[in-house]
Amino acid sequence: MQAQRSVGIVQRKYFTFAQDAPMPLDSGETLGPITLAYETYGQLNEDRSNAILILHALSGDSHAAGYYTPNDAKPGWWDDCIGPGKAFDTNKYFVICSNVIGGCQGSTGPGSINPKTGKPYGLNFPVITIADMVRAQRHLIDHLGIDTLLAVAGGSMGGMQVLQWMVSYPERVRAALPLATTARHSPMLIAFSEVGRQAIYADPNWHNGDYYDKTPPNTGLALARMIGHITYLSEESMHQKFGRRLQGRERYGYEFETEFAVESYLKYNGNRFTERFDANSYLYITKAMDYFDLSNGHQRLADAFVNSAHITTLVVSFTSDWLYPAYHSKEIVSALTAVGADVTYCNLQSTWGHDAFLLEVDTMTHLIADFLDRVVRENGIRLPKPVVEAQAVSK
Amino acid sequence: MQAQRSVGIVQRKYFTFAQDAPMPLDSGETLGPITLAYETYGQLNEDRSNAILILHALSGDSHAAGYYTPNDAKPGWWDDCIGPGKAFDTNKYFVICSNVIGGCQGSTGPGSINPKTGKPYGLNFPVITIADMVRAQRHLIDHLGIDTLLAVAGGSMGGMQVLQWMVSYPERVRAALPLATTARHSPMLIAFSEVGRQAIYADPNWHNGDYYDKTPPNTGLALARMIGHITYLSEESMHQKFGRRLQGRERYGYEFETEFAVESYLKYNGNRFTERFDANSYLYITKAMDYFDLSNGHQRLADAFVNSAHITTLVVSFTSDWLYPAYHSKEIVSALTAVGADVTYCNLQSTWGHDAFLLEVDTMTHLIADFLDRVVRENGIRLPKPVVEAQAVSK
Repeated sequence: MQAQRSVGIVQRKYFTFAQDAPMPLDSGETLGPITLAYETYGQLNEDRSNAILILHALSGDSHAAGYYTPNDAKPGWWDDCIGPGKAFDTNKYFVICSNVIGGCQGSTGPGSINPKTGKPYGLNFPVITIADMVRAQRHLIDHLGIDTLLAVAGGSMGGMQVLQWMVSYPERVRAALPLATTARHSPMLIAFSEVGRQAIYADPNWHNGDYYDKTPPNTGLALARMIGHITYLSEESMHQKFGRRLQGRERYGYEFETEFAVESYLKYNGNRFTERFDANSYLYITKAMDYFDLSNGHQRLADAFVNSAHITTLVVSFTSDWLYPAYHSKEIVSALTAVGADVTYCNLQSTWGHDAFLLEVDTMTHLIADFLDRVVRENGIRLPKPVVEAQAVSK
Repeated sequence: MQAQRSVGIVQRKYFTFAQDAPMPLDSGETLGPITLAYETYGQLNEDRSNAILILHALSGDSHAAGYYTPNDAKPGWWDDCIGPGKAFDTNKYFVICSNVIGGCQGSTGPGSINPKTGKPYGLNFPVITIADMVRAQRHLIDHLGIDTLLAVAGGSMGGMQVLQWMVSYPERVRAALPLATTARHSPMLIAFSEVGRQAIYADPNWHNGDYYDKTPPNTGLALARMIGHITYLSEESMHQKFGRRLQGRERYGYEFETEFAVESYLKYNGNRFTERFDANSYLYITKAMDYFDLSNGHQRLADAFVNSAHITTLVVSFTSDWLYPAYHSKEIVSALTAVGADVTYCNLQSTWGHDAFLLEVDTMTHLIADFLDRVVRENGIRLPKPVVEAQAVSK
């Protein structure tokens, strides 16, 4: 654990709601009770106006920063960007992150107990959408007594939730940071999702989602994750990271073994993923992403944002992200510009592909910190006293 | 069947060799006897100097043009480019295409009978390389009595074989057309190969390759093919072809079904592939591609081509091909230029991704036909009399 510039030891908290009246979903179904696992970092200021909601991507969770124990090998997934003096500066902001519904890291999902049967939902869990995820988060924000979020921010599926917040609850958002994302899941993204799902369906351990008392479909889930990992990198970053290097051997084995470093990386990460992720959650969350299309039901994408003109927005894409190419971000920028919103757009130079939103820390820190400073200034937000005071200049 | 401009009804032929002395392989193993399934179109000229060898890609076979029966729904895989008046004009050239060793369309592969056991090889088939495929083709060319090929041509893995011909048997080649290909399989290509293989390994019907008297691992093979299909398209062509269109329904079903047109396309093509392809062949051929690296053992890629300077070469890449991006072709061009070869390079504008080499017919026809005309002219090749004579101008 790195103490410096870290939020330190954090705890996962839980909020349960929709116990009496279940929450309606886009599908027409309902869900309840709902538990959201969440974490918070930093202090809420007096008028509760410095809260930033961080939204996670497909495989993320509420553990965005800090460590659960001093012995943790790794901090939360966006620790590089959340902490004292970081992009989302916890000396200034109250940062919240919750696990999405449908997930498997503490929030209600297909692995949770279905109150009707006393057994895990499995495929009886209702199909959810990005809007349903955001609907649940709104209950959490209510619970925390926050009227208006200073900002909503996230990359990839997190960015979809950012855009959905802007559309579903514009009056609750001052600023938005959709990063490496899209306003509508493209056919290529749907295609990769579907192949991942097919890999899970094909695993004989899947048992139509009813495997919670049995061996889980880890082979299928690992395969889905391997496909995902390829798409998160770029051709260039794969050259830098692996090239054609062999793993632990000098020459070709002429056998069907893991030989190349890139194969070894994929297998290792595919298998590791099964230790922390539930295959059914993978199905539900990818399906939610596939359904995501803010332009659905509108003439133009801009029509979705008619009530979002007051939200100050920073849109970021990355040059080597072929999964969410820059033109997706430009569509968002055009739509927001069309409704008269204050939008800043950066297409950041990076070789890291889609993963860049987790890796291009230095550039993003400047960009995000400056953007948030401006939002604070323009909205007259009074930040909490910094934990570390500036040193007095000695005479 | 379209009679006009078609090579018409064709027949698959077979050539068997290495019966007494097995053919040595790159791995140190040997293989024999070896049968190659092949087809030929057009007429060989008197001095046997107008032969063009077409090399097929991963899922291809010897059936490059024409129809087996008048009722065939589809012609050979490159029929758009091979035939009277087409890019590879069968009025002028004698066109040959053979199924690679390791394949499953008539050439010796893992599904063939192992003479040592009297049963299909399965995983006892030796691991082969692109150079081994070309080594076998050389025997076929010898058998056909052709000393020098006018040209070797192919896209994707076919292009790798083209480059391998230039390196292995430069004295037997006058011109080369490596299309949409690479001189070394990139880590991203290896990654996609490996995920496809893992999908096959994961199929319980795979039985370590020993399934020829049982249900084959079609689910795994279909998955591998689905992944492949995504990579053969481009983000743009997927938008054009599918967009977010639903298949046979008006609104989201909120169920785990095939809903989007792109999902339906992938499933259909994945399943159809299993009717004509053998999962073990998929393993062997992708492995051969992964091993392909002409720079291996050399200081620079150019060193591989020191004996290829006399070969006139047309290198073609396609702007939207993210699987074999243009810079791979540029590397080939640089290497050939460095040894003083006569190289023409075109990076063709196309939205079709990697599949463009099969689809951009008009542009390629002009490009290839003109290139071959030049090679014929510069080498003083005497072509056979055209089957269709120019009409006499009436007085």
